[in-house]
Amino acid sequence: MSTRTTFQPVLERIAEEIERTPGSGRPADYIPALAACDPRRFGMAVAEPDGTVYGVGDWREPFSAQSITKVFTLALDLSREGDALWEHVGREPSGNAFNSLVQLEYENGIPRNPFINAGALVVTDRLHTRTSDAAGELLAFLRAESGNPELTYDEEVAASETAHGDRNAALGHFMASYGNIDNPVPVLLEQYFRQCSVAASCADLALATGFLARHGIRADGTRLLSRSQAKQVNAVMLTCGTYDAAGEFAYRVGLPGKSGVGGGIIAVVPGHCTLCVWSPGLDERGNSVAGVAALDRFTTLTGLSVF
Amino acid sequence: MSTRTTFQPVLERIAEEIERTPGSGRPADYIPALAACDPRRFGMAVAEPDGTVYGVGDWREPFSAQSITKVFTLALDLSREGDALWEHVGREPSGNAFNSLVQLEYENGIPRNPFINAGALVVTDRLHTRTSDAAGELLAFLRAESGNPELTYDEEVAASETAHGDRNAALGHFMASYGNIDNPVPVLLEQYFRQCSVAASCADLALATGFLARHGIRADGTRLLSRSQAKQVNAVMLTCGTYDAAGEFAYRVGLPGKSGVGGGIIAVVPGHCTLCVWSPGLDERGNSVAGVAALDRFTTLTGLSVF
Amino acid sequence: MSTRTTFQPVLERIAEEIERTPGSGRPADYIPALAACDPRRFGMAVAEPDGTVYGVGDWREPFSAQSITKVFTLALDLSREGDALWEHVGREPSGNAFNSLVQLEYENGIPRNPFINAGALVVTDRLHTRTSDAAGELLAFLRAESGNPELTYDEEVAASETAHGDRNAALGHFMASYGNIDNPVPVLLEQYFRQCSVAASCADLALATGFLARHGIRADGTRLLSRSQAKQVNAVMLTCGTYDAAGEFAYRVGLPGKSGVGGGIIAVVPGHCTLCVWSPGLDERGNSVAGVAALDRFTTLTGLSVF
Amino acid sequence: MSTRTTFQPVLERIAEEIERTPGSGRPADYIPALAACDPRRFGMAVAEPDGTVYGVGDWREPFSAQSITKVFTLALDLSREGDALWEHVGREPSGNAFNSLVQLEYENGIPRNPFINAGALVVTDRLHTRTSDAAGELLAFLRAESGNPELTYDEEVAASETAHGDRNAALGHFMASYGNIDNPVPVLLEQYFRQCSVAASCADLALATGFLARHGIRADGTRLLSRSQAKQVNAVMLTCGTYDAAGEFAYRVGLPGKSGVGGGIIAVVPGHCTLCVWSPGLDERGNSVAGVAALDRFTTLTGLSVF
Repeated sequence: MSTRTTFQPVLERIAEEIERTPGSGRPADYIPALAACDPRRFGMAVAEPDGTVYGVGDWREPFSAQSITKVFTLALDLSREGDALWEHVGREPSGNAFNSLVQLEYENGIPRNPFINAGALVVTDRLHTRTSDAAGELLAFLRAESGNPELTYDEEVAASETAHGDRNAALGHFMASYGNIDNPVPVLLEQYFRQCSVAASCADLALATGFLARHGIRADGTRLLSRSQAKQVNAVMLTCGTYDAAGEFAYRVGLPGKSGVGGGIIAVVPGHCTLCVWSPGLDERGNSVAGVAALDRFTTLTGLSVF
Repeated sequence: MSTRTTFQPVLERIAEEIERTPGSGRPADYIPALAACDPRRFGMAVAEPDGTVYGVGDWREPFSAQSITKVFTLALDLSREGDALWEHVGREPSGNAFNSLVQLEYENGIPRNPFINAGALVVTDRLHTRTSDAAGELLAFLRAESGNPELTYDEEVAASETAHGDRNAALGHFMASYGNIDNPVPVLLEQYFRQCSVAASCADLALATGFLARHGIRADGTRLLSRSQAKQVNAVMLTCGTYDAAGEFAYRVGLPGKSGVGGGIIAVVPGHCTLCVWSPGLDERGNSVAGVAALDRFTTLTGLSVF
Repeated sequence: MSTRTTFQPVLERIAEEIERTPGSGRPADYIPALAACDPRRFGMAVAEPDGTVYGVGDWREPFSAQSITKVFTLALDLSREGDALWEHVGREPSGNAFNSLVQLEYENGIPRNPFINAGALVVTDRLHTRTSDAAGELLAFLRAESGNPELTYDEEVAASETAHGDRNAALGHFMASYGNIDNPVPVLLEQYFRQCSVAASCADLALATGFLARHGIRADGTRLLSRSQAKQVNAVMLTCGTYDAAGEFAYRVGLPGKSGVGGGIIAVVPGHCTLCVWSPGLDERGNSVAGVAALDRFTTLTGLSVF
Repeated sequence: MSTRTTFQPVLERIAEEIERTPGSGRPADYIPALAACDPRRFGMAVAEPDGTVYGVGDWREPFSAQSITKVFTLALDLSREGDALWEHVGREPSGNAFNSLVQLEYENGIPRNPFINAGALVVTDRLHTRTSDAAGELLAFLRAESGNPELTYDEEVAASETAHGDRNAALGHFMASYGNIDNPVPVLLEQYFRQCSVAASCADLALATGFLARHGIRADGTRLLSRSQAKQVNAVMLTCGTYDAAGEFAYRVGLPGKSGVGGGIIAVVPGHCTLCVWSPGLDERGNSVAGVAALDRFTTLTGLSVF
């Protein structure tokens, strides 16, 4: 089978279908920079393990990666400290809205998983302690994996996040009160908001996710994660990657995935390929409406679900 | 590749390892019939899609299937009413202990998923409305799929569950107060406790789970679920099948699975095989210690994870 | 000061004001017998410690006492078992809607106070264990204190409560699962629903509450509660007597009080008098709109607040 | 009756009893300045409405007033903005531990009452907006009412609170995310920690509370609160003044009261007198063990309960 000839027609068919039945979602509106996005934008890319990449629509247009970056900081920290990370953040689905403080309180400042905001703050905090520059580390990784040296932060978005950052500041101080944050909370928040503000395209992010299809191997052939760790990151993505809709995402799409409020979603078919889809209209749980629909169609048309 | 020559040695190697490092878990003690189990018992079976079955240890010894039966009643009801079921029970991980009433209250009597007790009560209630004999329907299905006509209920266990059934009675009445239960609660509870009391062996249950490896096809070649529905049941198992440890199970084992407090766990490698392992010693979250360890070893040794 | 000449004009002034600005509340609608009440009905009575009683409006019209009876069963049980009761029910405000199961779960089946439904079920259960006829004991007490031998249950209301009793059945079974209920749950529920169905007038209930103004002494001069216990019941009424509005009731009225969804409220001015007001229109927290307003006016006009 | 001859013997009797059966509590240990207190210290003062003050033990020894100051900032803000305050903070008991974030989340950033930390932050924030110096305003008030010009902040305590202030910072940012905080969170926290650090004696605080016994009138005869507002503050103290033990405090003591983790408690007998007791050993809910016992004895010996 030559997947080379397979993915492009599938992507085009999906793009046509999405265009005919545009999603009803709305862009995130908690910061102006995101609210201004046109919800009808749509792009999708598929990257093969060897770096070949296919795409349709706005697949080369940078958008705000937001929570998608949580996958990369998780992998970067995990590659450094290994299982010790899991004493500071759990691996269980949260079963609540993505900003909830409730479980954090009942579980003594240990967030349920690395993909809710509280958990991502812990991961960034730990990566920052180990590298002195968590956001810079992330940027270097994304540039290397995507082969795009111009990939960078969106300073306007970062500033906007900071100005609306009270909820994350509350999470940071709350965990600090349990001793689960190493760096001063304002330092952590600056790192975190820079990380969230990364602007990248579907092509960039599908390529950057490649190590999860290659069982832990980076684009240059060096190993980032052990085979077992790569499997574990995929497992956490499948069970926790789409806020309070992880069950429904697994049910409809059946792939490890991670969404962001910028409207992007990355997904992995272990051993086969990685995907990134973007469309800014979100459903009430913060996931791209057209993005989920496109991934649903992709697994249906190709049979490439993990189930 | 002849899997025939593959699985038996793997099972024997796993059994040896388990015997050398027996788990530290304890049998469920909420009813006497389960508390009396020897925690060192261990059995494991693998069934191929064609019905070939391999096993080690106590793999032909019947044990109390308990919550494992929730997979079968889910499939049986889904095959009858289809997606309408999902208006009455969700598909999201619960993120709480398996008996929790909290989320049920916040979500107006709609349980988070069909594998927590509240959700299983809803499924049994709906299957009973459609068949007038939910427990009998389950038994007929298990006998047919396992090819074991002697598979039956354990009346002592059912009576014991009933005598300790206040928590489930509370769940039933609570959901009834929201209009989410059709049958009188005492009728529902009788059906539910009979269902939980089914005694079956690893061989029986590995074979009975076969339809999930065969994408919805029963042992006799007829279709129970559509391909899409079979995928969906696998997804729900992966995200919700092991109580509050679904994330860790996905992380360690990486297979759709469902555990019961009798110490059994079933698991699915879609397209390849189904497994059932049994050992009565449970961890604090209600999953078999040796069972999880054995499945972990199985996926490591064979590489047969979905990730 | 002759209070005899004081209370009648005050009551008449309040009744006039209430008539001019009728409340906007709505009768309880969870059972038909209550939903049929005319929300504009209004009655109010004041009883002095010596048994003199004043009244206006529908003050001699029987209405459904509902949760007001919880004060009397509390006193009756407390007089029998004393402080041992407090190992089975707390004395803290619940801080949640009156049917909440959440706190019950976090506090291991011990209800927060005797005036939420769960707590009242515990009190009735314990009184029933001690008397073999909790509801009969209550009826005998109310008849004796009010001097009204015709005061009785409303069987239609009791039957209607039973038919809509799933929420209370859930509470009963849930606490039974923690070992905090002695009697079979169906037996307890029958007693409880009979108790709630008592029909009594403002005059009856103001008189029956008299022992709390007389520091524990019954109408016939015998002692029901010690002085200290009477003070304690008043304290529990002030902090927990009006569902999730206890703080506001204390703030506006400043008297120990207990409301019921039938639209009645009893209140105590320790050492001075007892009151009962009735008007079926309820606010969203289950308290009579005109009833609270009338008590507010009473304390303002007479200066008889405890603060 | 001459209360002048009444209170001194009662205080001495109570002090003797407390000395014979010293409490088993432990000083607050979250900051070193409080942890160093000798738990056996004991002082108690009673102030009459005319300013006469009686005392025993360490009644002239300054201690850390902590949450007791919340009563004064509440009164100071209420005297300025009146009922508008209640749109930003509720008046209901919290029914949870005093630092809980849970209810705050379910109730959209509106704290349940002004005596939990979240509510006190809101009150200080609003007072600061209206005075540009909330902590200074408090200090001026306490000095004037107590007649003690040397009453001041304990800068060491304030610094220590700041260093351990993550929980309160989390509360502040969390409410800010709902738009319920006007000032920058760091500014608010500085004001709040200064306020908490006030050092005052039992004599000082009993006198400063006098306006609540005088129905709103300050020591100099001017009016701070209307009669109705003074009654309302007393009601909030009774229902919410002692963390998660308000019900038990009302039950045992039967007076409006407010405790602090420094071991102090103030209480009001409306129209009669005000009290302040101090002993640093706390129970598990943060209230002074000997302090509650002393107030319990006081109301029993004098009959001066509100019930």
